[in-house]
Parts: sequence; C-alpha cells; structure tokens
Amino acid sequence: MDLSMDRVRFLGSSHDYAAAHKVLLGAPMDWTSSGRPGSRFGPQSVRTASELLEEYSPALDRELAEAPFFDSGDVLMPFGDVETSLNNLEAACSRAIQDGKGVLVLGGEHLVTVAAVKALHRVYSDLQVIQFDAHADLRDDYLGQKLSHATAMRRICEILGPGRLWQFGVRSGTREEYALMRKFGMGFADCLLTDEGRSGAAETVIKAVGSRPVYLTIDIDVLDPGAAPGTGTPEPGGLSFLDLTDILMKLRPLRMVGMDVVEVNPMLDASGRTSVAAAKLVRELLLAF
Amino acid sequence: MDLSMDRVRFLGSSHDYAAAHKVLLGAPMDWTSSGRPGSRFGPQSVRTASELLEEYSPALDRELAEAPFFDSGDVLMPFGDVETSLNNLEAACSRAIQDGKGVLVLGGEHLVTVAAVKALHRVYSDLQVIQFDAHADLRDDYLGQKLSHATAMRRICEILGPGRLWQFGVRSGTREEYALMRKFGMGFADCLLTDEGRSGAAETVIKAVGSRPVYLTIDIDVLDPGAAPGTGTPEPGGLSFLDLTDILMKLRPLRMVGMDVVEVNPMLDASGRTSVAAAKLVRELLLAF
Amino acid sequence: MDLSMDRVRFLGSSHDYAAAHKVLLGAPMDWTSSGRPGSRFGPQSVRTASELLEEYSPALDRELAEAPFFDSGDVLMPFGDVETSLNNLEAACSRAIQDGKGVLVLGGEHLVTVAAVKALHRVYSDLQVIQFDAHADLRDDYLGQKLSHATAMRRICEILGPGRLWQFGVRSGTREEYALMRKFGMGFADCLLTDEGRSGAAETVIKAVGSRPVYLTIDIDVLDPGAAPGTGTPEPGGLSFLDLTDILMKLRPLRMVGMDVVEVNPMLDASGRTSVAAAKLVRELLLAF
Amino acid sequence: MDLSMDRVRFLGSSHDYAAAHKVLLGAPMDWTSSGRPGSRFGPQSVRTASELLEEYSPALDRELAEAPFFDSGDVLMPFGDVETSLNNLEAACSRAIQDGKGVLVLGGEHLVTVAAVKALHRVYSDLQVIQFDAHADLRDDYLGQKLSHATAMRRICEILGPGRLWQFGVRSGTREEYALMRKFGMGFADCLLTDEGRSGAAETVIKAVGSRPVYLTIDIDVLDPGAAPGTGTPEPGGLSFLDLTDILMKLRPLRMVGMDVVEVNPMLDASGRTSVAAAKLVRELLLAF
Amino acid sequence: MDLSMDRVRFLGSSHDYAAAHKVLLGAPMDWTSSGRPGSRFGPQSVRTASELLEEYSPALDRELAEAPFFDSGDVLMPFGDVETSLNNLEAACSRAIQDGKGVLVLGGEHLVTVAAVKALHRVYSDLQVIQFDAHADLRDDYLGQKLSHATAMRRICEILGPGRLWQFGVRSGTREEYALMRKFGMGFADCLLTDEGRSGAAETVIKAVGSRPVYLTIDIDVLDPGAAPGTGTPEPGGLSFLDLTDILMKLRPLRMVGMDVVEVNPMLDASGRTSVAAAKLVRELLLAF
Amino acid sequence: MDLSMDRVRFLGSSHDYAAAHKVLLGAPMDWTSSGRPGSRFGPQSVRTASELLEEYSPALDRELAEAPFFDSGDVLMPFGDVETSLNNLEAACSRAIQDGKGVLVLGGEHLVTVAAVKALHRVYSDLQVIQFDAHADLRDDYLGQKLSHATAMRRICEILGPGRLWQFGVRSGTREEYALMRKFGMGFADCLLTDEGRSGAAETVIKAVGSRPVYLTIDIDVLDPGAAPGTGTPEPGGLSFLDLTDILMKLRPLRMVGMDVVEVNPMLDASGRTSVAAAKLVRELLLAF
Repeated sequence: MDLSMDRVRFLGSSHDYAAAHKVLLGAPMDWTSSGRPGSRFGPQSVRTASELLEEYSPALDRELAEAPFFDSGDVLMPFGDVETSLNNLEAACSRAIQDGKGVLVLGGEHLVTVAAVKALHRVYSDLQVIQFDAHADLRDDYLGQKLSHATAMRRICEILGPGRLWQFGVRSGTREEYALMRKFGMGFADCLLTDEGRSGAAETVIKAVGSRPVYLTIDIDVLDPGAAPGTGTPEPGGLSFLDLTDILMKLRPLRMVGMDVVEVNPMLDASGRTSVAAAKLVRELLLAF
Repeated sequence: MDLSMDRVRFLGSSHDYAAAHKVLLGAPMDWTSSGRPGSRFGPQSVRTASELLEEYSPALDRELAEAPFFDSGDVLMPFGDVETSLNNLEAACSRAIQDGKGVLVLGGEHLVTVAAVKALHRVYSDLQVIQFDAHADLRDDYLGQKLSHATAMRRICEILGPGRLWQFGVRSGTREEYALMRKFGMGFADCLLTDEGRSGAAETVIKAVGSRPVYLTIDIDVLDPGAAPGTGTPEPGGLSFLDLTDILMKLRPLRMVGMDVVEVNPMLDASGRTSVAAAKLVRELLLAF
Repeated sequence: MDLSMDRVRFLGSSHDYAAAHKVLLGAPMDWTSSGRPGSRFGPQSVRTASELLEEYSPALDRELAEAPFFDSGDVLMPFGDVETSLNNLEAACSRAIQDGKGVLVLGGEHLVTVAAVKALHRVYSDLQVIQFDAHADLRDDYLGQKLSHATAMRRICEILGPGRLWQFGVRSGTREEYALMRKFGMGFADCLLTDEGRSGAAETVIKAVGSRPVYLTIDIDVLDPGAAPGTGTPEPGGLSFLDLTDILMKLRPLRMVGMDVVEVNPMLDASGRTSVAAAKLVRELLLAF
Repeated sequence: MDLSMDRVRFLGSSHDYAAAHKVLLGAPMDWTSSGRPGSRFGPQSVRTASELLEEYSPALDRELAEAPFFDSGDVLMPFGDVETSLNNLEAACSRAIQDGKGVLVLGGEHLVTVAAVKALHRVYSDLQVIQFDAHADLRDDYLGQKLSHATAMRRICEILGPGRLWQFGVRSGTREEYALMRKFGMGFADCLLTDEGRSGAAETVIKAVGSRPVYLTIDIDVLDPGAAPGTGTPEPGGLSFLDLTDILMKLRPLRMVGMDVVEVNPMLDASGRTSVAAAKLVRELLLAF
Repeated sequence: MDLSMDRVRFLGSSHDYAAAHKVLLGAPMDWTSSGRPGSRFGPQSVRTASELLEEYSPALDRELAEAPFFDSGDVLMPFGDVETSLNNLEAACSRAIQDGKGVLVLGGEHLVTVAAVKALHRVYSDLQVIQFDAHADLRDDYLGQKLSHATAMRRICEILGPGRLWQFGVRSGTREEYALMRKFGMGFADCLLTDEGRSGAAETVIKAVGSRPVYLTIDIDVLDPGAAPGTGTPEPGGLSFLDLTDILMKLRPLRMVGMDVVEVNPMLDASGRTSVAAAKLVRELLLAF
Repeated sequence: MDLSMDRVRFLGSSHDYAAAHKVLLGAPMDWTSSGRPGSRFGPQSVRTASELLEEYSPALDRELAEAPFFDSGDVLMPFGDVETSLNNLEAACSRAIQDGKGVLVLGGEHLVTVAAVKALHRVYSDLQVIQFDAHADLRDDYLGQKLSHATAMRRICEILGPGRLWQFGVRSGTREEYALMRKFGMGFADCLLTDEGRSGAAETVIKAVGSRPVYLTIDIDVLDPGAAPGTGTPEPGGLSFLDLTDILMKLRPLRMVGMDVVEVNPMLDASGRTSVAAAKLVRELLLAF
C-alpha cells in the first residue's frame, strides 16, 4: 500500500502515471538544516498552497492539463537518517527516469538535490546544474559533516566535474566559496536585477550549455525575504518574484531533465505566501520545460 | 441607537456629517471567501492601523482636514447572509449619494463592490469601473454560486455593459477570464512596472473615459504579497506600494464618484503592515480624488 | 472523480468502505460564524493532527483496526451558501445511514449538526441529542438569521420535539436560553467537575434515554480554552480533557447512531493542540461507541 | 472633544453617565514592565473581547443592564512618562468618586493600581486592598526604580499602613518579599486549590475586614498560564478560571469601592483567550459588587 | 575558545566551576524528531525564560545561591549527525561525573537521555531511571531507526536491564509498549491526579529503589498541552504543573545523580510559557535534589 | 561583574577590547515608543540573527576579522526611566570614545540616538548627522513629552545647530516637520529609487560634509515593510535592502565616528528577517567605515 496516496496532491496532478511526462516527488527532509528546521513540511505545504492558484499560466498561455504530470507523493525519509533518506530519493528518481519521465523534486533541505543529481548523472554523464540560491553551498564540510545542506553544491561538483555549475543569485558565502564559484562554474548575481543583465546571463549560459541536459535547482531563499520569508536562513537583498520568473523564462531554450524547488519552511511563514510562491514556480516550471 | 458609533474611526474623520464630502463605510463581510476567511475584520483593522499614520500626505501636500469625510462605521451584515449583507450596503451607499457625497467602502471581500456599483449605477448610468486586482474575478459562477468574490467583476460587467471595465495588475485567471478581459474592457499588467508604462496606461484610460463618472476598486492583493501578506489568496509577483500609488496619482484627472479598498485580512498578518498599507491608500484616495 | 480522495485521511481509516462500521465525513463550513471564522479548516486539520497519535487507546484497550471506519473526505460545501452546504451534508449522512453505517461528522461550525440530525431523525423518529458545548445555542434567530451557529440547537429542538436534548457543560447563554434549556431537556454543568457529579449525570441520562438512539455532538469549546484555544468563541472556565473523556466513557451504555466534533478552528491555534485534542476525541468515540 | 468616545466600549456599557453606578477606565500604560511589554493594549483588547460574551451571567443570574456602568474610555497616558500617566489616572478616579461612583480600572501594568488606590485612600482612610497575583510585587525598588510594576504593592502598603493588604495566589517572590507579606497583611496560596480552602480564606478576610471599604486588584497572571498566556511574566502553577471566580463570589459580602484587572498583554496571545478571560472577570465584578 | 561561553546562562549560574555541585549542559539536538522539529532551540530558550523567574523557591524556601551549579553552555551537536551528537554529550556528562558533580541536561529531543544514562551507568551499575512522559518511548525501532526519540527508553532499558524503569504520566503508546512497560518496570498514570495517588506512587518507588542512584528524566509533554504547548507531539490530558511539582517533591528522599528536562520546542509556543515552565522545573530540581 | 558578558555576542566579535577599533553597544529601551513596543529586544535579537550570516562580505571583499570590534553587551537601562537610560548610554559611548574607538549602537527606540550624539558632540563639535528613516522625527513634543522617539531628531538638531542633518528616505511627517527638514538640513527621498539619484545624493552630501565627522543613524523602518516588518510603525513604500546598501556604499568616503541601527522589534516579525537585515547592515557598516 502506498501511504503517500492519502496526501494532498499538487494542483492539476494527473491520476494516470503512464501518460505523465513528469513525476513530482516530495522529499520531506531537514535533518542537516543548521538554521531553523521545518522544511520537512515544505512538500505538503506547497501542494496545499497550490489550490490558491489557477491551472492556467498567463505568462505561458498554457494550462497544466497540457503538460501532464503525476504527483507520486512523498518519498519515505526516516527522521534523522541522512543516508537512507537520500538513497530512497535517488531510487525514486531513478525509477522515474527509467520510465522516461522528467523529475521535479519538492524539498526539503537543499541536500536532497545531491540525490536527484546522482540519479540523473548516472544516465546523463554530461549533466549541467543551474542553481538559484542566496548561498553558495560550496563548503567542503560543516561542523565536520560532509553531507550537509551547506555542502550540497560541493558534493554535486565532485559528481559533475569542473565547469558545470551555473549559480544565479548567490549573495552569501565564505571567501573560499567565492573563489570556488569561479573554479566550478560561473556566477550571476547583481546583473539579475535588470532586464539587460538577465538577457545577457541567459545568453551566456544557453550558448555554453547548448543541448546538453540540465538539472535546475531553485532554493527558495534566492527570492528576497519579503517575498519568501518561510525559509531557514533568510538572506536580505534577494530577487523579486518577477525577476526570478523572467530569468527562468529566458532559460526556456535549455533542455531540463530534472528540477527541484527546495528549502520552503512553512513553520516560519504564517501568511503562507512562501508556499504559494513555490507552488507558482512549480506550475511555471511544469509548463515551461 | 447606532451601534457602529462605538467603533474606532478612521484617522481624521470629521464628526460633522453635513460638512463631509465623502462617507466612509465599513463592509465587514467574508461569507463567500474561498481562500482563508477573515476579511470581515478588515474595516476595523484598517481604522486602527490608520493611527500609525500622519494626517498629512507629502506626495499631495494636503491634510485630511482639507478633504472632510465622515466615517459612519460598519454596515450591518448578518453572518452568512449574502443577500441581506449586500442589500444593506447598497442602501447605505444610496443614502450617501442622495446626500450628495462620495462613498469610500472598506471591505470585506470583493463581492461588496457589486453592491456599491449597483447603488452608483442607478444614479450614474454611464459609470466606468477601474479595478486594481491580482485576480480577474470574471468567473460566471464558483462552485455553482453566482454571487462570489470570484465572480464579482462578472456581475459588475452585467450591470455596466461591455467596454466599461479597466483592469490593472491582474496576474491570475482562467484562460476564459483572460478572453473576457478583452471583451469587457481593457487590462494593464506588465506595463505597470515602469514609469513610462504607467504613464501610457493612465493616458489611455483618461482619454477613453473622459469626464464620465468612475468607480475605483482596489483589491489589496494587487500589491505584492511581501507588501500585503494579509489577504486570502496571495498571488506572487505583484506591484510595489510605490508603483501602485504612482499609477493612482496619474489617474487623478478622472472623476471618481465611488471607491473601495477590499480583501484586507488581518488574521493573516501579525505584523499589521497590510492594514497600514490599506490605510495609507485610503488617506491618499481621500486626498487625491 | 472524487476530489476528496486526494485528501489526508484520518489515522487508521480503512480503504474498504463496505467493511466499515462508521463513515467519517468532513463538513468544512463556517459561513455563519459570528466570532472568528476558520472552522472550515477544522476537518483537514484534525485529520493531519491525528498522525501525532497512536491507533491504540490505553483507556479502552482497543485499536482502530478493531473498529473499522471509512474516512470519505469532505462534503462539497459552496462558500457562503448555507442551504446547499447543509443539504449536501444531509444527503451524505443519509447515504451512509442507508448503507447501515454510523456517521461521525467533523466540523465546521455547529450549524452542521442540524443537517446530520435531520438525516438521522428521518430514520430514528425517537432520536435524542446529547450536546457538549460552552454555549446553549438556543437562540431563535441571530441578527435576523434563523440558520446560524447560535441557533443550531433551537432548530434541532424543533425537529426532535421537547424533552430530548441533554446539554453538558453549558456556561454561557442569555437568560431566555437558560429558561429554554429546562423546557427542551436537561442541563449538566458544575456537577461535571467531580467524579461523583459525572457519575450521577451519566446515570440520569442513561436511565431516561434507555435504548433509544442518540446523536452526540461535541463543540470543542466545551473544553477549557487552555486545552482548546483554537475555537471561534472561547469561553473561560471549561472542562479539562480528562473530565470530558471521563463523562463520555460513562455514557458508553448509550446507543450512539451519529456523532460529531465541531468548531475546531486551526487558524487560532499555532500550537496545534486543539486539533490534536479533537483527533483524540474522535479516536475515542470511534473505539467506544 | 473626547477622543476616547471613538473607541470600542465594553459590552453593555450605558451611554448615560449620570445613571451609571460604576465608571470603567482604561489605563493603557506599560512603561515600567520588565518582562515583555504590550499591556498598554490590554484595555482595548478586553473591550473588543467582551463582544464574544453574553451580557447575562448564569452564576449570578443577573444582566449588565441591571448594574448600569459607563465606559469612559482610556485615560491619556503619555508614552514613557510614568508620573503624568499615574497623575492622570488618579485624577480620573477622583472625579468618578466625587460623582458618587465606583471605579473599575482596566490595565495596563500593575503600577496603575497605585494611582487608583491613592485616589480612593483620600476618601476612604481605612481602605483595605485585596490582591490576586502570581507575584508579591513588594520590592522596594527595581533596578533603582521606586515606581515599577514590581514595587506596586510596596508603594500601596506605604499608603495604607500595615495589616491592610490581603494577597491571594502569590507563588513567586524573593525571600524578603515573602517575609514582608506577613508584615503587611496576609497571604493565601495553596489553600485556594480546594473548595474548603477557599471558603476558609474568604471567611478569614470577611471577618477581619468587616464593613470597611475594599479595593480589589486582579493581576491576570494569578491565573494559570494555560488559561491566561497573554501576560508579561507568566508564572507556572496558577489558579484555574473556575477557582478564581469561586473565591471572588465567596468574597461578595465585602464592600468593594474600587477594582481593577491588570497585566493583560494581547501581543502574547494570538488566541485571544486571555482578553476574553479578563472581560468575563470584569462582567462578573460589575454584576457581583 | 569555548564558543558556548557567549551564550545566555541559566538564572543564578555560578561562574566558579570548581565550587559547583551540579553542571548544567545544553543538548540542542532534534534530528530524529518525528513530529515538529525545533527542540534544538530548547536549551537556549529555557535559559532566557529563566530570567522571568526569581532565584528563590517558596515551596522549598531555598535560593539558587544555596545550591551552586555551573551552566557550561551547549554541547557541540553537528546537525543531522545522531552518533556524534550523542557521543559528545556522553563525553561531557562523563567529565562532569569524574569531577564529582551531578549533571542536569537541557534537551533537545528525548534521545539525548540515552547518552546521559550511558555515561552515568558506567559509574553507577545499579542505576534506576524515573521517567515523566506522555509517551512510553519503548518502540524497538521507528521507521527502521534504532536511535530515535520514540525508542529512547527501549535503548535505556537495554542498558539498565529489566525492572529499573519507573514511568510516570504515560498516556500514549502502542499495545506492545504498554505490555513492555510492565516488563521493564512500573507505570503510574491516573493515580497522579490525586494527592493520595501521588503519595502512594512515591512511597512505592522510594521503597523499591531505596538508596540506589537514580536518573530523572522529564519530557515536558508529561504536562497538559495547555500548560506546555511548545512541544513536538502534544498529548491531551496531561498533568497540571502543580501536580507535577507535587509528585517531584514527594520523591525528594531519592538520590538523584543525574536529571534532564527535554522536548521543549519554543517554535511552537509564542507565549513562551513552556520554556518558563521548564525553567521553573529546573530551578526546583536544582534546589530539591 | 559584568552581567552583559553572559549574553550572545554579535557574529565575529573580538574578545580583545584593547585591539578593537569599534565598540558595539546594545541599547534595550522602548519606553517612549508610541506604536507597538518591543524594540528593547532588538539588540539581543540582532545578535542572535547574526549567526545566520557569514563573516565575509562579498560586496566589500572583507571579513569581520579584518575590522576588529568588541561587543560589550547591553547598557543598563532601567524600565520606564528615560533619563537614567539615556545617561547610561551616553556614559558608555563617552568611555569608548575616550578609548579611541568608534561606537555602533544597537537600538532600541530612536531616542537612544540622542544620547550617542550627545557623547560624540562633546568631542566633535562640528558633528554632522546622516539619518535613514521613514519618519522625520522632528516634532517638538509628543503628547507633551520633549523626550520621545518622535522628537529625537529635533533634540539632535538643537544640539548640532542648523544645517547639519541629512535625511534619507523620509516619507512621513507633519506639514511642519517637512518645513523643518529644509531648515535643519536636507532631505533625499524619491531620488533614492534609482542608481543615478543615489549617486547624485551621495555626491551632494560628500561635497558638503567633506572631512567633518559624521554620525550615521539607520531606523530600520527606512526599509520597505516587506523587507523589515518587525518595527513599531511600519510605513508603506520604503527602500529595498539593495537600494539601502547601495547608497550606504556610496557614502564610504565619509568619516563615520559613530553609527546606530535602531527600531528593530522582533516581537512583530516571527520570520526573523528584520533582525537578519539589521545584522547584515551592521556587518556591512563594521566593514565599510
């Protein structure tokens, strides 16, 4: 029996797994969060918030019914067990990929991205990663821990090899992380605040990446804390929701094979707007890519 | 005995009904809200929040004493009784109009606009409506209901006739609603983000409307959820407060005969800033029009 | 397609409708609430909270698997439409009764009890009602409304006839309501605070009711606001959770044919303990009767 | 112009000052609070909460109309100015006393009691004070301050002289304060948890006080923090609401010439039940004495 | 450099380690919490809340200065790393024991008790454990995890051997756990609600345990959720604060060599009273044992 | 003994007072706040929030270790005693100045700036003040009070003399205050919304001030309420965090001898982002000046 079937599903989820192009997977894990925990409730909160939205996107002039997806519920993640949690997510992603479907993961802390990238990298050896995030997440360890939300992108770079990480919106890191950013890939920050800057950044990435497969990870804290207060480590000075969706739309020529939206923590946002923002991002991602 | 007289009044309200140019009416109704209820507390919360403001507007270089208005308290709206609630509001608006005064309604859910427009349309047969809103509100029915916050503008279009609805800031709707927007009037959305766009939009409307009487309705969710989290159905990607007041000031040449600010829900905003934003809008509306 | 199937179910709900002895129905309605709205979210909140509990009751030494029930999700209740909402609930209750099952309704405001009692009274003409509540709810109308949460028990008395209402824990009402309490049935209040008093009250009711069918309605505000703060009109000085479950257990000899737990408003209780209390009550009711 | 007339009034307040037996005065001051501030909002919050109650008390079988009182709004208390704030309250109390009325003050921090007692002591030289409180409030100074919520009862003892302070429910203090309690009057704590204990305490006080005039001050933190979380310095292990009202009713033979309910801080209680508890206390006090 | 020295210390903490009789250790860990996380913030919140209390206990007529203790700050617990976290706590406890001091641990989730008991059992081979808790915590595993807050007492029983666990206040568990309770030790639940019951329970334990060393663990959820809402898995129907301190005082003849207060989660209690209750318990434990 | 040493320190604070270039002083005072109190908790909340940040500033490519400062804890401010509180702060500032160090004050209400300016003006007779604020704070008195958060800048102008106050971001005031702004100095508001406007404003000030010593005061409410909801009197339409830090960086040529960040009220922002924004401002100020 699949317990996750008794959960709220994301707005417009198909009941027909076979016909779905993408699979939506909840990854309710926050064991290594160093700030304030609670992102384990992100997946369910984003699904519930999706009901406040329409299935139609005016920006894309498309409806969710035109891009069928299947919300398969939450992956089993035993509390406090990092390894098993990531293994279970990796296995779930692999199953979806084997069935010829794209994956869209709902976090949970950013460490879940490591599991999804592992699964995709096994199939796509030239995988590129585009990261939207306030933080570099490139530490080698955190308080001695190799697997931590603060080291997620470092682990991913070790999987992908150099030059394959594209970071958007990073505005916090150690001096060492800023040096690594240039080693592992390329970063775009202040330029994202103007239309020209966003166009330039998109062109650079599209030209460099070409038709290679891409994994897109969005840490909700890339948004300004006013737009997304429900996250463990809010960093002042982020993107507006419109700037974020604009640069995402400019990246539409890319070939996304996997995506995630992570670090939504509903315990820290009684207004619920962080979950609504994440849900709207998910809708746009499902329709755009 | 008028129970409503024991309420907090809006900042700077005159005690002299006869001398007032405008009447402020609370419409504490949220019976058909499909998201999260609580906008019934909007009128009282906006009045209380008004005390955090000054009576002087630097933008307009005017004080509330120069534009005398009378806060007549809340209209009686029996809980759960849509018809009586709307009838009572319509009657209260009609009385104010007959006394030669403009009306400014504090919602409550957006359905209250239907009652106010009905009252005004009886006097001004060529009434135009300018709507600031995140949602089109043009559904024909909602779960079978003809009178719902989600159908308010559809009902109003039926009263006014085609070509009289001007929608600003709409960023959510069904595909059908987006088609109707063009039929019933005209919409302005992305252009509102730049100064030139706002000037162009204002010119278009001012030219088309001319000296005909206008009802202005502002759903607080036209603002970005960061600026106004206290509302039932927050929609990411809205206007900043400054962009909103800028376009409103550009519409000053119009002849406003009625106005409202609706969908403020203080239960969802412990910081109180949504109510302060609504109160500041009310102050500017009272001084500008 | 049954949309409600995508909801969280109550802890231990069977997936086999045919084998279930009882049907659990959500009634997400708060249109006539005069205090603070939000009990529409009660059913879903109580289901989610049930996951914090065990399926085993130490008090009864029984597990939910031994008393199979089917959580059939929420009844469709159009926002702000009192009549249709109640009709839909009445129809859902009637279907369950015709299938030979008991009903357990999760409110929602107290007015939903009227619909359930109507459905049951059609089959059980000698139906008795036991009410746990802080308020008498015996007004004839409320601000002119005949159908209101504040008139629910008056309407029920009109259905049942005199002498069939047993009120427990009432500590608020008008002078007229206190007079009616004696006319329509019998009330137990202060005696519930001692073990002897509870035993005496239970004996009185058991003797008077005998084997006649009983509907049991529990307004969560019968509990002290410290134990159940998440309710629209908290009334100081209520029962402790242990006193409430003790008197319920003493009423086990009665033949319950329908039950409800109403007025849980999760918007007013960030700690979540009101929903947990309601969920634990539901578990005990499912196992005891 | 009386600004306070634009405020919400307490449930059932008469509009006829002359006919009123008692005057209700708000004292919105929290300048010396050492815990968490916010009790300045107590008076307005208690008035608003009173609307959730009935005007009829089942315990006393009386309605507010039978004990006419006049809610004269809040006394002007300039922010951060202890002396002026207390002087203004003292003057307002004196006016009411001169008009032959009893006073009921809504705090505000406990220091406001000093002003009320000063006004009453000028008329009633043999005034006794009955204090319900979790804290002794008998320090001589607090961080060097003579006028502080933590020294309020010490100041009052200096006004009254020894042997005139009766403390109920105190469960926190320094060793020195516990010694002073016995010097200045008499304390009742653990005995309040049983019916016999409460009867004994009431008898002792009634016998000792006789017909002398009494001022009754209730710090809401005498209640258990579960019943009244909205207060600056919650102290675990307090009275239940029923125990408190029971002992109050047992003190009915006394001649109360002034009363207050203080330290309600609505900023710390989103559920609102602390304000409802205070409002219900006020209703019972108005009807009982 | 000891980072923990820059933290708030508990009320009355000595600055002289050598002279201290007891060491207070924070254990900020919630990695395996299955309900709502946040108890990692418990230690710091309890320390901050302690400032709302007096250093004098009226019940014990003692001041903290008479029972010198040293708050040595929080043990380093790497986020999401169960093993290292527990090892660090065990080492810290061992150091204190070797220095001839008692330990008092502030949780954090209940699993931290396992580390403290391990350290003590190495020195006291006949150690007994007294547990105050709403939940049995006797599962063998939880979602496959052997080390979980839900298995803490099972692990402890494996360390101690049978017949050495005394459980107070348990009101939730599986049928299997209730069977194990009798195997591993003895449980006291309903009897704790009366003075006689508490005396009887205390006598039984004191007689059986005699002079053997005891570890006392208090899960704050043994209290009723009204008194302590800030905890991950609130269970309705718990002890009042006064009943809890009464039974603790009755256990004073026992020889406590270690103690803890765990599962305080300030993220779930905006009123702060859970942390104050825990702080008052800590003060009484420091003074009583 | 310095009690304040037991407090959390700001991120990266040195333990070596002698080597520090700047001293950080907490000023936990909110006695004259007319809106909602709670800024007394600002200093401690900002320190705690600083732990969510990195010590490295990408914008300045500097780390806190490169600009050594000493967090000397909170100044003693007796509750409700305006005069003593300000005197204590003035004395603490004077000590730091005499030791050759810059001061950075964490408020607390805006009145604390008066004390810091007094201390600095005694040494720097040609002191200039740059104020970032939503409100002019230029009233002569407030409800009769000369010392109030609403009069702080008026008092400061009296100390400095005319032409020495530079106000940025003011968007609220009385008509009289707007007139005074021009008398006492110069104001910059709308121009701050564009890069050119900010450059022009900075050039004007830098040219006029030259090498004279400057005190910089930042009222957190200069930010938009979406970015900083935790403040007593939120004023819609403020600066974004990026606009604020941009203009601050453009003012780097100035010689800052004292600075503060005030009016952070954590009681009004459960998300904590206001405190994080203030902490990030403090980090940038420490590194930039």
